[in-house]
Parts: sequence; C-alpha cells; structure tokens
Amino acid sequence: MPISPLRPQLSEASAPLTHDVEVIDERGRRSVIAIPAERPLTVYVDKRELVTLMTLGGAPEALILGYLRNQRLVKSIAEIESVQVDWSVDSVAVVTRNGIADVEERTSKKVVTTGCGQGSVFGGLMDEIDQIALPPEARLRQSVVYKIVDIIRTQHSIYKQAGSVHGCALFTSQGELLYFFEDVGRHNAVDAIAGRMWLDDVAGGDKVFYTTGRLTSEMVMKGAQMGIPFLLSRSGTTQMGHMVAERVGMSLLSRCSGKHFLLLTGHERLEFEPQLLAAAG
Amino acid sequence: MPISPLRPQLSEASAPLTHDVEVIDERGRRSVIAIPAERPLTVYVDKRELVTLMTLGGAPEALILGYLRNQRLVKSIAEIESVQVDWSVDSVAVVTRNGIADVEERTSKKVVTTGCGQGSVFGGLMDEIDQIALPPEARLRQSVVYKIVDIIRTQHSIYKQAGSVHGCALFTSQGELLYFFEDVGRHNAVDAIAGRMWLDDVAGGDKVFYTTGRLTSEMVMKGAQMGIPFLLSRSGTTQMGHMVAERVGMSLLSRCSGKHFLLLTGHERLEFEPQLLAAAG
Repeated sequence: MPISPLRPQLSEASAPLTHDVEVIDERGRRSVIAIPAERPLTVYVDKRELVTLMTLGGAPEALILGYLRNQRLVKSIAEIESVQVDWSVDSVAVVTRNGIADVEERTSKKVVTTGCGQGSVFGGLMDEIDQIALPPEARLRQSVVYKIVDIIRTQHSIYKQAGSVHGCALFTSQGELLYFFEDVGRHNAVDAIAGRMWLDDVAGGDKVFYTTGRLTSEMVMKGAQMGIPFLLSRSGTTQMGHMVAERVGMSLLSRCSGKHFLLLTGHERLEFEPQLLAAAG
Repeated sequence: MPISPLRPQLSEASAPLTHDVEVIDERGRRSVIAIPAERPLTVYVDKRELVTLMTLGGAPEALILGYLRNQRLVKSIAEIESVQVDWSVDSVAVVTRNGIADVEERTSKKVVTTGCGQGSVFGGLMDEIDQIALPPEARLRQSVVYKIVDIIRTQHSIYKQAGSVHGCALFTSQGELLYFFEDVGRHNAVDAIAGRMWLDDVAGGDKVFYTTGRLTSEMVMKGAQMGIPFLLSRSGTTQMGHMVAERVGMSLLSRCSGKHFLLLTGHERLEFEPQLLAAAG
C-alpha cells in the first residue's frame, strides 16, 4: 500500500529465530533440537532508555511500535519519525517528531500484570477501558470461527519448529488472515500486531483477534484498545479477563480447537449456523 | 517449625480462587464452568506504593515476600516486620524494620521479560548471575524425576478445576513435595515458592524446582537466585533460558511428562538408572 509521508522510517532488522542445542533424552540418547531465540531489546526513545524487552526478534520494529501504542506512550503513529533496530547492540532507537510528554511520570506507575509472567503496563489502563466502545453490530459466523482455527492449525510457525512461543493473529470477519506474529512473550506478539495495524492504518472494528495464549485481563484490554470486538483463544480465560470483556462488550471465545469452542461473553455477536450446530461437538 | 523472633507478622488473607461463568458451546448448549480468579494486589512498602500484581490470590503473603526477594529489593526476611493483605481494598501493606534503601532508584530500571507475558524485573539481574554458584555435587536420580512428574500429575489443583493457571513446586532431591503454588502468572507462583522458602528458612542447594511453565531466562534466573540446581518443566525452554542455565551451572530438564524428558544442561548432575534406561521411551 502507499506509504504516507508520515509513515516512520523503519529498519528491517533480522536475526535467527531458532537456536540448536544438544539434548539427552530419558534413554540417554543424544540429539539436537531447535529452541526459540530469546534476546533483549533495549528501547531508547529520543536517546532516553525506556525499557528492555525480551523477544524472539521476528518483528522488532512492529513490536516496538505496538509497545509504544499499547502502553499509551504515543497516541498516533504520525508522532514517530523513525524506529531503527540494531541487533549488534541489542537496542532500538526510536525518534519522535515532538518527544513524549511526561514520559518519566507516565512510565513510573508499574502494574505487573499476568501473562503467564508478570507483564508490565504503565499507567492506569483500567481507567481507560470504560471509555472504550466496541461496535455492537459486529458479527462473526460460526463457520468463520472454524476457518480461523484451521488456518492457525496449518500455519507455518516457529512453534512447530521449536515450541515455547505464543502466536497472535489478526483476521477479517470473513476469516482472512491479515497478520500472524509469534514471540516468546505473548504480549510481544499482540504488540507486534498492534504495531502493524498502525503502520498499515488498519482499524479493529471489523476484525477478529486470535491468540494461542490465555485470555487474561491484559490481553483483553489490549484487544479492546485496538478496537477489536472478537478475541479467540485455544486457551482459557481468567475472572478479570472475563470481567473486562463484559465491561467493554467484547465477544470472548475460549478453548477454540477443531470444531469446539466456548463462547464466554458478547453472545449476541456470534452467529450460530444450523447445519453446524447439528454437525458439531 | 519454631517461629523465629524475626519472622514477619503475616495476615492469612483468603479469597475465592475460582469463579463460575455461563458459557455457550459450539452446539449452542449453555453450561457453567469455573475459571480462575485474577485480582489486582497493590503493594505498599512502608506506606509507599511500589507495584500492582495481578494474582490468583491463593498465597498473597508468600507471593509478596517472594516478589520482594526475587526483585532484590529486600536482602533478608529479617528486614521485614509485617505483611498484611487486605482483599477488601486489594492491597498489601509491607512494613520493613529499616526501610528499603534507594527504592526509587532501584525500581526505576525496567526489564520487561518474557514469561508468556512481559514480566518485569527491576535492576540488572543479568549482572548478578555471574556471582551465583550452584552446588556442583548435587545429583538427581532418573527415578526421582519420574516420581516428581507423577506427584505433579496427581496433585489436587486449581488447574484441574479451572485451567488457565501455572503451577510451581519445590521438591527435595528424594522427590518429596515441599511446596506447591499456582497462580495466573507463573512468575507469581515461583515468587510464592521463594517467599515460603524464606519464611521456613529452606535452602535451595539440595532441592528440585518444578514449573508447568516455559523455562525462559527469567524463570532460570529466579531459580538460580534461590540457589536451586535443578529446574524441571513439562514445557520447553528458550535460547536465553538455556544460556543462563549453562552460565550458572543449572541442570535444566524440559518436556518432563510421563517417563519422558529432555536433559538440556548440567548433564553431569542427572544419574541415569540402567533399568530405567532400558524401560523408558
């Protein structure tokens, strides 16, 4: 698509995504397996160190853009002049057009969220969710849920090669795959999606978000911030993920696998299809 | 065991660990399932707000002690006078005997680590790992690995009731279960173990640490900080988790399930047993 004059200049840094190690199994047999890369990426915004992310390294520029977006540190991608990743020093230099106001103050409050780990969200995200309104008219057909699950199942992935990564994907409401990102941290994977949506000027209102990870509060909040009314996972949810989804009016589907799923919230948005109701389960 | 005069005063706060929600499955059938609780717990140290953790809430006092320990904010449990959790305000008041020096400065540097999420570790943990020496003479028998896996498999757990939580456990080198904690964040679960080890004055050098989560850099570092030479997981590892384990001389076993495992590092510590080598696989 055409590059807007305000599209930031981006590096296209790449690094190996898997690493071979020798292992010994329960019978004493030696073999070599691939494991996913995990590397630090220290973020400098206008030459000030902000944070160090641990990442697979598959899409660092999109990750950083999405991180700044999802942490609410930058309101519009037009504020960002360039994102230059340099793996030789494991760092990324972000240059903004006008600086980030109160960056010290805004990054000082730490909310260590779930993930499977202790995630980190700066600022009071919970304060913001009541301002979020997801499109009530958005609909998703049961057959599209199955199509999405099947596309994910057959997707070429680091997970299949090396395991131990989480994947996130963005689909249209017709089930066409737009983006697929993996990372050692599932929150990195969702941030990379958010970054690409920004770069490509893609809105969330008619999209479906899929994650291999659990639907914890932070994942639901990030989906809501991106304006996406549907959040699907092969995993389960938590009480707070469920509560936030109800509060913002998001449709949550957990345990999506094969022809199985559990619709948790936003029931009205899922269009069950008679022939599938009969065939499924 | 006897309570030392310097043992902190602890609340014994409890809260429901699961929550029932109505779901609709792929055939349109309604049912009620249990999902794990997830709640914020804001930590005040000497009346200063430090951080908000998202937690299942099963062992909040041990979690906070372990969090302060693993974040290197408190060097000895003797420095802590009391830990009082109050779920009515989702907060915990920690009172130290002499305050935490430079708490502002020491919590300002953010390393957002993997987990499945973006964990948060204050300060340069990587700088510390080279000072860690795990006991080279520690040994673990193959049969004890199987015993540990079986104890975990049969353990009563929130995971079996509601899914979507991670478990961590501490075992003796003979495979006796000492502690088992679950949380929505696996880093919370490991912190709770660290807190209990502190409270009970349990050393790590002759122990085995088990986690259901992946062996990422932060998990390996936390195990190393607790002085534990063995780290087992039913999941896999990442390049940095592997690298840190080699650097500190920790024995990593991944994919522990049934009679299967992959020994990744610290090969010399695992004692293969001939009859099992023949029987396994």
